[in-house]
Amino acid sequence: MERLDDLQLCGLKILQDPERFCFGMDAVLLSGFVQVPDGAPVLDMCTGTGILPLLMSAKTKAGQISAIEIQPESADMARRSVELNHLSDRIRIVTGDIKEADRLFGAASFAVVTCNPPYIAGGKGLQNPEAPKAIARHEVFCTFRDVAEQSAKLLTPGGKLFLVHRPDRLSELLVTLTECRLEPKRLRVVYPFADKAPNMVLIEAARGGRPGMTVEKPLIIYDAPGRYSEEIRRDYGF
Amino acid sequence: MERLDDLQLCGLKILQDPERFCFGMDAVLLSGFVQVPDGAPVLDMCTGTGILPLLMSAKTKAGQISAIEIQPESADMARRSVELNHLSDRIRIVTGDIKEADRLFGAASFAVVTCNPPYIAGGKGLQNPEAPKAIARHEVFCTFRDVAEQSAKLLTPGGKLFLVHRPDRLSELLVTLTECRLEPKRLRVVYPFADKAPNMVLIEAARGGRPGMTVEKPLIIYDAPGRYSEEIRRDYGF
Repeated sequence: MERLDDLQLCGLKILQDPERFCFGMDAVLLSGFVQVPDGAPVLDMCTGTGILPLLMSAKTKAGQISAIEIQPESADMARRSVELNHLSDRIRIVTGDIKEADRLFGAASFAVVTCNPPYIAGGKGLQNPEAPKAIARHEVFCTFRDVAEQSAKLLTPGGKLFLVHRPDRLSELLVTLTECRLEPKRLRVVYPFADKAPNMVLIEAARGGRPGMTVEKPLIIYDAPGRYSEEIRRDYGF
Repeated sequence: MERLDDLQLCGLKILQDPERFCFGMDAVLLSGFVQVPDGAPVLDMCTGTGILPLLMSAKTKAGQISAIEIQPESADMARRSVELNHLSDRIRIVTGDIKEADRLFGAASFAVVTCNPPYIAGGKGLQNPEAPKAIARHEVFCTFRDVAEQSAKLLTPGGKLFLVHRPDRLSELLVTLTECRLEPKRLRVVYPFADKAPNMVLIEAARGGRPGMTVEKPLIIYDAPGRYSEEIRRDYGF
C-alpha cells in the first residue's frame, strides 16, 4: 500500500510502498557524502522512488537534477513525489534503462552523477526476478560495470560519481571504476558499531582523475544499541 | 649507533640503528594480521632488519621463514639478530633484490608472502636516494607492482600475500593486485583514533582467489591521546 512519508527535512515528503521498496540509511548517507558545485547539473541513476533527488534538492545547491529509473511504477511514484513537493522545475524523473542514459541525456552532460545501485551481483537464478524488491537489490537490469561505463560517458571531464555500495565488493568496485577511467578519489567506510565489520562504503570517483585517494574517518552509525552516534544525529537528523 | 632492543615477546631481541631505520607500529600490526598455516613456508620481502620474521617466529607456527632485503647493512643486522635469538634453523636472511626473488627462491615456493614495502611512490628526485631511510620509505629499488608481480610468482596457487600500506594508495593497490591475479580477500583499515582518518591499511590477497572480500571491523590505535585501545594493549602488548 502506497503511503506518504515525511522526510523531516524542509517539509519534504515521499511516496513509498513498503511492499515494493522503501529507501534506507544508505540513501540518506549518500546524500550527505555527495558534494555538488553550486548550480551543477546532476543525474541520479537507479533513482527508485526518487529519494536522492529529493534529499539533494534540499541539501545542495545543485542546478537541474535529472533522475532515471527502469521500473515504471517506481518512476511514477517519484514523479508524483516531485509534484507534491512543488519541485517539478528542479527535478526531472525519466523512465528508462541506465544503459541508454548517454543517448537519453547526451554525453558529458553532468558534473555530478549519483547512484545507489542494486548491491547483489548477478540477477540470474532469482525466484522472482520481476519482483520490485529483487530488481532494487539484485543486478537484474544493470551491473556495476553498466553504472561505471555510463557514468564515464555522462560526466564532464573531471566530473564526479558518488555511490554507496557493499564492502564485500569494494575491490571489484575500485577496479571497475579505474578500468572505466573513473579514478577513485574518496572513500568512507560505514561501520554499524565501532567494533563491528562495515556494512557500507561510500565512494567518490572523478572522470579522468589522477591516482591517489583520501580514505576518510570512519562513519559509525550507533554509539550503543538503539542509540545513533553524535554524527548521525547531528548531520542526518535521526 | 646500533643498539639491541627487547621485543617484549618470548625474550626476542632485535638489532636496530635509529640513524638508519627502526621498525614501527605498521610491522607489528602486520604480524598480527598475518595468518600462517602450521608448518607453511613463508617469505618476507623488504624485510629490513628482520622484524617480521622475528615476530612471526613467535606468533605463528610457520615452517621455514625466508626473508629478503636489498640493503647489505640491514640484511647483516637481521642475520645477526636471528643468530642472537638462536633462530638460525628457522629464519634465513637473503641479501638480494626482490625483483629476482623468483629466481633466488624458485616459483611457487611459498604458502605465505608478507611485505611491509616502501610506501611512497616514485624514487626519483630524492635528495639522498641512497640514504637507508629513503630506501625504506620510497620506492627507490622496487615499486608496488614489483612486489605484486613477484608475489604472484612466488606463491603457491591459493597462497596468500599479506601487506601493510598507506590508505592514499588503496585503490592502486587493489587494482595492481587484481591485475597480477592476486585477489584481494581481506582488508582492515587502521585508524589512529575513532574520529580520525586512517593511516594504514592491512590487506590479504590470494593467488587466483575468487572475487569478494571481507572488510573487517576498524582497528583503532588510541582510545584517548597517549592511551592505547584495549585491542592494541591486549593483542599487541603495548
